[in-house]
Amino acid sequence: MGSNVMGTSVVCQVGVIVRDVEKTAQAWANVLGVEAPSWSLTDPKEESHINLLGKSTDARAKLAFLSLGDQVQLELIEPVGEPSTWAEFLKEHGQGIHHIAFHLKGMDEVIARLEAHNITTIQRGDYTGGRYGYMDGVEELGVILELLENFD
Amino acid sequence: MGSNVMGTSVVCQVGVIVRDVEKTAQAWANVLGVEAPSWSLTDPKEESHINLLGKSTDARAKLAFLSLGDQVQLELIEPVGEPSTWAEFLKEHGQGIHHIAFHLKGMDEVIARLEAHNITTIQRGDYTGGRYGYMDGVEELGVILELLENFD
Repeated sequence: MGSNVMGTSVVCQVGVIVRDVEKTAQAWANVLGVEAPSWSLTDPKEESHINLLGKSTDARAKLAFLSLGDQVQLELIEPVGEPSTWAEFLKEHGQGIHHIAFHLKGMDEVIARLEAHNITTIQRGDYTGGRYGYMDGVEELGVILELLENFD
Repeated sequence: MGSNVMGTSVVCQVGVIVRDVEKTAQAWANVLGVEAPSWSLTDPKEESHINLLGKSTDARAKLAFLSLGDQVQLELIEPVGEPSTWAEFLKEHGQGIHHIAFHLKGMDEVIARLEAHNITTIQRGDYTGGRYGYMDGVEELGVILELLENFD
């Protein structure tokens, strides 16, 4: 029994690909009995440094968040432009659950350890205050993992 | 702003369809640095009363669970036989995240309220100590919901 590769087991987000973030956020708000959250557009590539399989891309996404209990946020993701893991998922599967996310420290070391488990990098980028990495665990784990590292 | 249709917002499981539950449980155990969980087979239809779109089916599934923090369990699901929502998902999408689950009370009333939101019943059944219902929220919410009601 080895150590925890990500340094955490605590899932913090469930990421869902949708066609219309505003409409879907309103539908979730209706089901949960809360106010519909506003959405925001991911930063342009000059700021987000987004790359898909190591290549820069113009793709962005509209994001909205709802709370599913204290531990977990629901993240609604509407792909804007392409190519991105978000747009590819929508094209291949339609609407559906794209990933589960974990907050961690030491992104580069965690990615190196995951790659040793055949879980490879799909897409990376920055957001205000942190950075993310999507890891292709579909074959090994059945899921795409998102790694989130907030800067101190 | 209406009331909460499910009576809860607390996600308790993320359900993942896999081809080989034993292999995938071991891969997750390796990543999380824990012992691999054992798996169990769902009850035969005489006990589970499983039905897909209202019709009884011989389909079953092998299940294994890992903890993703205090609030959420990862549920690995290997379809056994068909037809079931599990087998259909594997055929259509390959391995991936099938649903998110919520514990609630008053299954029939919750289902009636969800159906009024165009979120319809896919599959229902019993397990030892409770019952479940999968609800097709893919179009409205982007996800399949699983409702879980443990008997008192």
